[in-house]
Amino acid sequence: MAFLKNVWYCAGWAYELEDKGHYARKILGESVLVFRKEDGEVAAMSNVCPHRFAPLVKGLRRGDNFVCPYHGLEFNAEGKCVGNPNEGGIPKAAVLKTYPLVELWGALWIWMGDPARADEDLIPDFSMAHDREGWAVVRGFLFTEANYELVVDNLMDRTHVQHLHPLLRFTEERPPNFERNQSIEQVSDTQLWDYHEELNSPPFPILKLTWPDAPDDIMNYFDVRWDAPGNMLLHAGTTQMGTNREVGSHTEGANLITPADENHTWYFWSQARDINIDNAEIDAGLKKGVADTFEFEDGAMVADCAELMDTLGSSDLMSLKPVLLPSDAGAIRVRRMLQALIAKEQAEEAAEKEKVLATG
Amino acid sequence: MAFLKNVWYCAGWAYELEDKGHYARKILGESVLVFRKEDGEVAAMSNVCPHRFAPLVKGLRRGDNFVCPYHGLEFNAEGKCVGNPNEGGIPKAAVLKTYPLVELWGALWIWMGDPARADEDLIPDFSMAHDREGWAVVRGFLFTEANYELVVDNLMDRTHVQHLHPLLRFTEERPPNFERNQSIEQVSDTQLWDYHEELNSPPFPILKLTWPDAPDDIMNYFDVRWDAPGNMLLHAGTTQMGTNREVGSHTEGANLITPADENHTWYFWSQARDINIDNAEIDAGLKKGVADTFEFEDGAMVADCAELMDTLGSSDLMSLKPVLLPSDAGAIRVRRMLQALIAKEQAEEAAEKEKVLATG
Amino acid sequence: MAFLKNVWYCAGWAYELEDKGHYARKILGESVLVFRKEDGEVAAMSNVCPHRFAPLVKGLRRGDNFVCPYHGLEFNAEGKCVGNPNEGGIPKAAVLKTYPLVELWGALWIWMGDPARADEDLIPDFSMAHDREGWAVVRGFLFTEANYELVVDNLMDRTHVQHLHPLLRFTEERPPNFERNQSIEQVSDTQLWDYHEELNSPPFPILKLTWPDAPDDIMNYFDVRWDAPGNMLLHAGTTQMGTNREVGSHTEGANLITPADENHTWYFWSQARDINIDNAEIDAGLKKGVADTFEFEDGAMVADCAELMDTLGSSDLMSLKPVLLPSDAGAIRVRRMLQALIAKEQAEEAAEKEKVLATG
Repeated sequence: MAFLKNVWYCAGWAYELEDKGHYARKILGESVLVFRKEDGEVAAMSNVCPHRFAPLVKGLRRGDNFVCPYHGLEFNAEGKCVGNPNEGGIPKAAVLKTYPLVELWGALWIWMGDPARADEDLIPDFSMAHDREGWAVVRGFLFTEANYELVVDNLMDRTHVQHLHPLLRFTEERPPNFERNQSIEQVSDTQLWDYHEELNSPPFPILKLTWPDAPDDIMNYFDVRWDAPGNMLLHAGTTQMGTNREVGSHTEGANLITPADENHTWYFWSQARDINIDNAEIDAGLKKGVADTFEFEDGAMVADCAELMDTLGSSDLMSLKPVLLPSDAGAIRVRRMLQALIAKEQAEEAAEKEKVLATG
Repeated sequence: MAFLKNVWYCAGWAYELEDKGHYARKILGESVLVFRKEDGEVAAMSNVCPHRFAPLVKGLRRGDNFVCPYHGLEFNAEGKCVGNPNEGGIPKAAVLKTYPLVELWGALWIWMGDPARADEDLIPDFSMAHDREGWAVVRGFLFTEANYELVVDNLMDRTHVQHLHPLLRFTEERPPNFERNQSIEQVSDTQLWDYHEELNSPPFPILKLTWPDAPDDIMNYFDVRWDAPGNMLLHAGTTQMGTNREVGSHTEGANLITPADENHTWYFWSQARDINIDNAEIDAGLKKGVADTFEFEDGAMVADCAELMDTLGSSDLMSLKPVLLPSDAGAIRVRRMLQALIAKEQAEEAAEKEKVLATG
Repeated sequence: MAFLKNVWYCAGWAYELEDKGHYARKILGESVLVFRKEDGEVAAMSNVCPHRFAPLVKGLRRGDNFVCPYHGLEFNAEGKCVGNPNEGGIPKAAVLKTYPLVELWGALWIWMGDPARADEDLIPDFSMAHDREGWAVVRGFLFTEANYELVVDNLMDRTHVQHLHPLLRFTEERPPNFERNQSIEQVSDTQLWDYHEELNSPPFPILKLTWPDAPDDIMNYFDVRWDAPGNMLLHAGTTQMGTNREVGSHTEGANLITPADENHTWYFWSQARDINIDNAEIDAGLKKGVADTFEFEDGAMVADCAELMDTLGSSDLMSLKPVLLPSDAGAIRVRRMLQALIAKEQAEEAAEKEKVLATG
């Protein structure tokens, strides 16, 4: 399956640059070097020296330049070779592919397709999931052995929570007036909202932590905004029935899914909260709790599914004709939108090639 | 190479159900859930939830039902979905493939082919290798990285014992009147006996353990009954020359070989003995001894051969034109019988398909 | 990519036979048993028993004979089956492929192609890298996860030293009169010299160890002789400007590169020195130092490159259109010579086959 190229992917969190100022990561099968320049800007270029294909990330860094650990070719932040300590001067062809990279809301957004089409305005809005007045944010990421669409499916689906996540599961009987409403709104051909609310809901274990004074008559909402191919906002919370959403506990989570390759996925997550915000202990507890949930519950399950799909002969969910449930509506809608976008992109590419041939 | 489908395979030992009452295992490439129902019957069905392909074995069990750990779909012992805690009611298409499973002589027999053709009478007789008056049985199993036919070859061959198994090897010179007789009897197109006896044999180390008062003039017999594709009885023992087989030490071993997939094999073994039968220490010693022999001698050797066959470019023994010895007669005969059975099964399948097309 | 067959490869060091007198190793994809006979001669034959493809190296050795660990077939040093403890006598077809093997200058040289063409005179001269009056030698080997040509490239290139090897790197500014000369001399279609000297060179850290009284005005030479496909002599040293090469510190290194298979490489190295020669401590230090340099610097880098080449879609360097530097001249020349030799060998083979067909 082809990847969608002309779109923003999360290449990592800005905090990952705090230590050494750079790191390398496989994204859509390409080895990418991500770094912060001395002027504070971020940038990305190929991690692969065009001479002998050595990993630049293992070499020295000189200011904004990276020196190949193998033969010392030096590249500036624009991917141009600016130094060759060996004979022959600067080899003209020694140019690294660069990638548009934007730092926004704590994340590093990379454009893997045609740089000319990289428009920052296309980055989905995650301002609400970033550090702001009255909110605290924890962040992390994990690596999963599964195709990224399986991870997106997992996030586009509220129903697994009750089965896969002990701390988020309702433990009491739902009252007779319990009601669940779900509605999907396609905003554009790259964006969709999946609104979800549970009225007259019973409490769930972790609520005591996030909202110790929670009343008995609560309402949960769990709205997911998807932007192609896998950038999701989880706008969720618990409030009191009959009040408005300002009462209670709320979270804004960024869940940014980026393919490492066909069968491996980066999962960047963040969680912002609006209570107990100046509490490092809660920060640490949440960071570990969310990381463990995603790694040992969601990530492990998705990898298990990928492994069993393998015994059935495919890594493509739809070709295995899954039995679908109404709660899959969001995930399936998103899969179809993505498929259409990829098909459109490929058609454009083919047309472009034909044009080049015709005029060439 | 295709597997023979319409035949009984060992899916495991009944004792494996003692702990949790169920387990999952890959058999012929399929992930199978094996379980004991509350009424004591055993059953098998796909371990793969048809919704998202999650492993049922990791979910909850409710009586005879299994609940998918991912979204809570609940399946009864007949593979029918009987519960959906999410919207949409029971999805009609949510049906698990079930497999005929029979518990007989301590083993669980599974039929991977057309269930309509599963006939319990086709299960080979292993009553003599089961717990019965005057006999004690130990059992175990291992997993080998080799095609199952290499494991069957190993068991259809008596001569390797002298070279591969230090505890079973003759250590003394064979007397001049030593005599070895072997004869093969094909009982049907799915069954063969390979009779083997050694007259005026020297003793071997482990004999002192199984028959402390063994005389000097002994006779060993080692008869193997093969049922396609890899269910073997080892009817073996040592007796005194000139007496009958009731004197001495005897063993009835079930060696049940089941492909996990093309290159990995389950090897279920049991060993029944008729002396020192109420002795837990001997049980434990034998269990460890036999397990170690199969794992570190036979299993390791067969995996080594598979690895070297790989350097020669094939995992199919016959295509590598092995140099054959008279002692391979049994193994080769069995390979040919198996090949014929598989060819017949495939021809039947093709004819069936043609019939469907013609009438369709 | 095909391997060059009619050529001498290093199969190992003679010291590897000291322990048990034999070992097995994968060379050009074949599992080869290398051994020293009781008469002191060395020999090589297939490690794969033609009966069941078991590894002879795991069996017993009886004098010059090897006994298959699986069924006891016994093979003499000429690969002929001379014993079958089982029925049927000696199977005529049970013959192991043998390989011409020559012990010369501490190395074991194997001919993987047509034995009729194996001519000892074709073994490249490594007499200078062997134990001789006034010289001490250390030896070792490593295994790298990369195609062998990448390892040869590494050795045909002097410039990486400054970047990859901290202990060999110049640490001081090069003086204005520093001069580097390089010239390539193709001696034959299988041999090439790459001469390299650095005049008025600054010192480098490890020089203090090998030549404590080194003056300030030094000259380094680093001449590499390549014999197809990957047998390289490193004739290198440091001397005083204006003197001859007898002053100073010198090393003769054999670097013998042998493909295990397409993606794995054996790297046999030795280093001879002409100072501090009766010093076991220096022997040990050098042995560890060189081994670590090759394993953790060269070997690791080459494996890293192989991994990144994989993300670019090929394990063949040239097909990835690398940006070349003048310092690659030797490596590229060698790659072209090798390609020509392989093409010639394949053409010869094809012609041979045609001839057989025409006369057949």
